[in-house]
This record gives sequence, structure tokens and C-alpha cells, in this order.
Amino acid sequence: MHQVHIGEDMRDRNREIAAENREMLQSRGVVSINIMSAPGAGKTSLLVRSIPGLTEQFRIGVIEGDVQTTRDAERVGALGVPVFQIQTGGVCHLDASMVHSALHAIDLDSIDVLLIENVGNLVCPAEFDLGVDARVMLLSITEGDDKPKKYPLMFTESRLLILNKIDLLGHVDFDLEKAKREAAEINPHIEIIELSCRTGEGLDRWTGWVERLHAKAGG
Amino acid sequence: MHQVHIGEDMRDRNREIAAENREMLQSRGVVSINIMSAPGAGKTSLLVRSIPGLTEQFRIGVIEGDVQTTRDAERVGALGVPVFQIQTGGVCHLDASMVHSALHAIDLDSIDVLLIENVGNLVCPAEFDLGVDARVMLLSITEGDDKPKKYPLMFTESRLLILNKIDLLGHVDFDLEKAKREAAEINPHIEIIELSCRTGEGLDRWTGWVERLHAKAGG
Repeated sequence: MHQVHIGEDMRDRNREIAAENREMLQSRGVVSINIMSAPGAGKTSLLVRSIPGLTEQFRIGVIEGDVQTTRDAERVGALGVPVFQIQTGGVCHLDASMVHSALHAIDLDSIDVLLIENVGNLVCPAEFDLGVDARVMLLSITEGDDKPKKYPLMFTESRLLILNKIDLLGHVDFDLEKAKREAAEINPHIEIIELSCRTGEGLDRWTGWVERLHAKAGG
Repeated sequence: MHQVHIGEDMRDRNREIAAENREMLQSRGVVSINIMSAPGAGKTSLLVRSIPGLTEQFRIGVIEGDVQTTRDAERVGALGVPVFQIQTGGVCHLDASMVHSALHAIDLDSIDVLLIENVGNLVCPAEFDLGVDARVMLLSITEGDDKPKKYPLMFTESRLLILNKIDLLGHVDFDLEKAKREAAEINPHIEIIELSCRTGEGLDRWTGWVERLHAKAGG
């Protein structure tokens, strides 16, 4: 029973390391984003599709969290940006300590925006602050419009909800208004962007959001 | 770090309780199936679509694992079969002990087949034997054909892989042959069924599989 074993000691320790990460990142002027979703919702595709545009304005660095393989890191690395791979070896989320090790291996002075792709999971990643500026959650519309109520912590902790794969809207039973309404009930401050990594629709809204986050951080 | 905390003690304890569950179920002639997948892959839809047909031959019971809500249990309960709900309260998988409590609450003499819907997660559910006859994994083709290599334990532990949402094959970039080949590389014994809960295509193959499992168990 995983959650039962995340005792207060462990939470406190994660919080401490997250604070160290935040200090490391902010002191170097690096804006950082923790991207979370279920497996296959399109986190890697979002990076692959948007990094070419983002690199016109920012020096991008990426941390790829994966249970086993290095496939995602290879896909993103092919774009020519620095990618640091964390293989969790079976662990179903990233924690602050894993990211801390990665931060020591990255030249933080050479990047402006750090994108962290978490392990695909709608439960545990939400529990672990990594010390980033913002958490973003992807929900693919093929997963169903019941997800906000079923995995509320994920929606509470995220500043931005990306509804991905909207090119499939006509092909699946997904009530877009219901999903948006229920996400807003759980987190009234959440911003929502609809996009499709496949068609490219809405990708400019995502890159615009990253720009505003960077501008707000005084970057 | 969840996995790190699943020590040998915990594994041993889960194994003991799983053995008790197995004994309880088999002594009553109940065939049991643990259904696992990522969130939104269609576990509940599979139950909702196939239970009406299955009840023509079997007395069905259902255990619904959910992190927070009772929505899935309500959807399945509407079919008129007994449903026992386990709300894990944040835990990202079912374990043998949770199922054990449920088994004590269910009249096992009144059912032939017990379907257990696990929490939506591709990592941790694979680590916990619940004491069932077979584990089944659903992979929605919208999740991507890279999932067998990325989440190998799930595929190793499953006897049957259901490729769901095949009605969307023309609308997503999913290499069906690659996914099947890589699943078979990880688990040469895995059976594979392609289906669509939306159109109903292939549902008869799933109910036929349950029938054969029941027959083999001497039910």
C-alpha cells in the first residue's frame, strides 16, 4: 500500500529537497515546469511538437522521467536540446530527490526553461512537489470526461490543464464542457488549453502560456 | 519513492494474503480476473459492455477499485450485478489485503465469476498479486504503441492483453503489429484480443475467453 508508506517523514524530506531545487532553479533564473499525465496522454508528443518553437525564444532543457526505457529521452534528444534521463526503475513517479540529482548534472546557466516530463500516472506524481514553478497536467480526451472527479489531487495541484487529442472529439464520447466544468469545480484557478499534438491545433496557446510564465517569473 | 518502500516484508505479506484469497475463491468455485490498465483505457466500459452477455452464462460479481469516487461502481451496479467498492483513498493500486476484506463482504457462493477492476495505473498494480486466476491488461490504442516496452512488468504479469478502442485505428498513429510483436517479445505466452467497447467489435472474443478460463478452472 504505497500511500500508506508516504509518512510525514518522507513528505517532510521531499518538501525540504523541493525547496532546495526551487532555490537552485530560481537563483539561476530557470523557469521550471512539471508535466504530468496518465501513460499515453501525449507528454512526449507535446514536448516534441512544441520545443522547436520554444527554442526560438528560450534555451530549453528537459528532464525525462521514465520507469524503464530511454525511448522518450531519445525522441526529445533528437531535437537537439539537452535531455537528462531519470529511469526510476519501477517507481511510479518522480520525487524531489531524483530531480535534485538531475539538477546537479545539468548546466543550469545554459538554460532558460526546464521542462520535466513526469512518469505516466494520475495518482502519485501529484503528491510530490519537485520544486518547480508550475505543474501542468495533460488529459487526453480519449481517457474520458470523468477523470477530474476521479483523480482530483492531480487537478488541484496543476496550474494548467491541457486537453489533448481534441482532433478525436467527434470519434469518442467525451463531454468537453462537463470535463472543463468539473475541473474548474475542483480547482477554480486552473487554466485550460485545448490542443492536438497530432494536428498542431492549439500548440501556440501552450507556447504562449510558457512565455507568460517566463515573463511573470521575471525571466 | 514508492517502490523502494515495497520491501520484502510487504511483498511476503501480500503474497500470504493473496494465497488466502486464492484458497477462498477456488474452494467456492469462483473464477477471478484482475483487470488492469492506465486511467481511461476502458476497464469500466469493458465491464459495462460485456456483463449483460456474461450473465447469460455466469453469476457475475464485481470488485471496483477506485482512488476516490464511486462512479465506476455506480455504472456497473446499474447492470444489476453485485458490486463491492474499494476506495483506496489515494493508493494507486489494489493489494491482496484490500481484496481480502472485500471477499469477506461478498457472498462467494452466489457468484461464478469475479471481475476485479484495478485502479487505473500501468506501474504498481502489476506488482501486487491479488490471488486471482488471471490478470488481464487493457491497452487503449490511443495510448501509443510504445507501451509494452515502457511498462514491461504489466505485460509480463498478464495472461491476456486487450487492445481497446480499435475503432480509432485510422485516427491515431498506432502500429498494431509493432505493439503486438513487442508485447509478445516481453511475454511470449500472452494472448491478444483486439476490440472496441464503443462499436462492440471483438467483445465476443473477450466473453469467449472468460468462458474458456471458467471451463479450464473446472467451473
